[in-house]
Amino acid sequence: MRFAIYIPDNLEGPAPVLYHLSGMSCSEQTFIQKTGFQRWASHYGIIVVSPDVCPRITYGVEKNEIEAKGLSFYVNAVKKPWNKNYQMYSYVNEELPSIIQENFNVNKDRQSIMGHSMGGHGALISALKNPGKFRSVSAFAPVCNPSKSPDIQFIFKCYFGDDEKAIEEWDATCLVTNYKGPELNILIHQGNNDQYKEQLKLQNFASACEKAGIAVSTNVEDRFDHGFYFISSFIEQHFHHHSKFLCDS
Amino acid sequence: MRFAIYIPDNLEGPAPVLYHLSGMSCSEQTFIQKTGFQRWASHYGIIVVSPDVCPRITYGVEKNEIEAKGLSFYVNAVKKPWNKNYQMYSYVNEELPSIIQENFNVNKDRQSIMGHSMGGHGALISALKNPGKFRSVSAFAPVCNPSKSPDIQFIFKCYFGDDEKAIEEWDATCLVTNYKGPELNILIHQGNNDQYKEQLKLQNFASACEKAGIAVSTNVEDRFDHGFYFISSFIEQHFHHHSKFLCDS
Repeated sequence: MRFAIYIPDNLEGPAPVLYHLSGMSCSEQTFIQKTGFQRWASHYGIIVVSPDVCPRITYGVEKNEIEAKGLSFYVNAVKKPWNKNYQMYSYVNEELPSIIQENFNVNKDRQSIMGHSMGGHGALISALKNPGKFRSVSAFAPVCNPSKSPDIQFIFKCYFGDDEKAIEEWDATCLVTNYKGPELNILIHQGNNDQYKEQLKLQNFASACEKAGIAVSTNVEDRFDHGFYFISSFIEQHFHHHSKFLCDS
Repeated sequence: MRFAIYIPDNLEGPAPVLYHLSGMSCSEQTFIQKTGFQRWASHYGIIVVSPDVCPRITYGVEKNEIEAKGLSFYVNAVKKPWNKNYQMYSYVNEELPSIIQENFNVNKDRQSIMGHSMGGHGALISALKNPGKFRSVSAFAPVCNPSKSPDIQFIFKCYFGDDEKAIEEWDATCLVTNYKGPELNILIHQGNNDQYKEQLKLQNFASACEKAGIAVSTNVEDRFDHGFYFISSFIEQHFHHHSKFLCDS
């Protein structure tokens, strides 16, 4: 597995770390090339880690498409053949942080997570399934309720079969209902012209948070779509958000 | 021909325009996706135009490679079959500005030009061949002396045959020797670890400028290479440079 890491100059001692999960069809290169986040990571003194979005494994022609599009959805697959390598949830939450903590001067008590689209889903479920592990979580145009999105369900069926209960354990809108733990400090942006809006189901997540009494800042921005100009336009706000929880003022 | 145009919000009246020419293997998408220039174009109120780097024409297998890599070098080719469509100098200096002036609210008396690598060469020769047309010119890692770069000469031979005099008319280091006109206001950055340094020949250009009494700011930056992280690290300085000549203080 490859990952990108950005280490600002002039850090003093162990630095906070922000994990970024990219969306489908991306690699570890996408976020670092197209969003201009470096300026803000440098400004706030935050180390940023952005892993590749899925194992680069070929299982055969049909399954190649899922690999080619990077459709890991950051879950731990149960069904064969996916269960062998598609363990991205464990990779992002255990293996990768261990590698980072062993090899770079990070403060392991100060970590946050963010993501885009499928990676926004990955960030939300990682925060919801690990109360207190991340100081804050943010997402651009996250997939919020995959078990209710027909176009996404075929992927989850590859990984879990028809076990609806299992699928709900990887669905932020379902998870938020039973969340118990410290404040999550969630920030979400979505473009009002997002071409995948119907599949993202931000409103379902916002309603579930309201019912569960969980604070979430959801911002729907006029005229923006799902792409990287949207991200680069609001990346400053996301780093400002995380800095409030990761950095000493 | 496709081009990208960035128009800042809240412009008042006709705005200055900065043309950006990309390097080989790029398209009109590259600069706008990978450099983060929008922040500075918006800050200074400058419209930015970045055209595709060559005609997308197929002449046959061998020639496809030149098209695929976008090796126009922003010249007007003389030899067949290139002379029909590879007239990028005229496109950049005449046809494209006419389209921009007719369709967008630009101040045609306030224009500057910049470029990267092959596009830096294009920016320099455009400024040198049109005294007074551009208020300032800047380049990242420009090809400065193509007639002395063996790896580049094969392209020029496609366009001009063995006519060395003709080739020198498209070579910034040769052109600067005979330049007569107002101040050029040239700013150049190059990475000290640029993998193409030997072909760029920045020192030849700097020496020719010195002999000709032409002011040029050349900045060789430690550790940077030829790529887009280099550009995005110094793009602010280039916009600041152009703003001094394009914008009212």
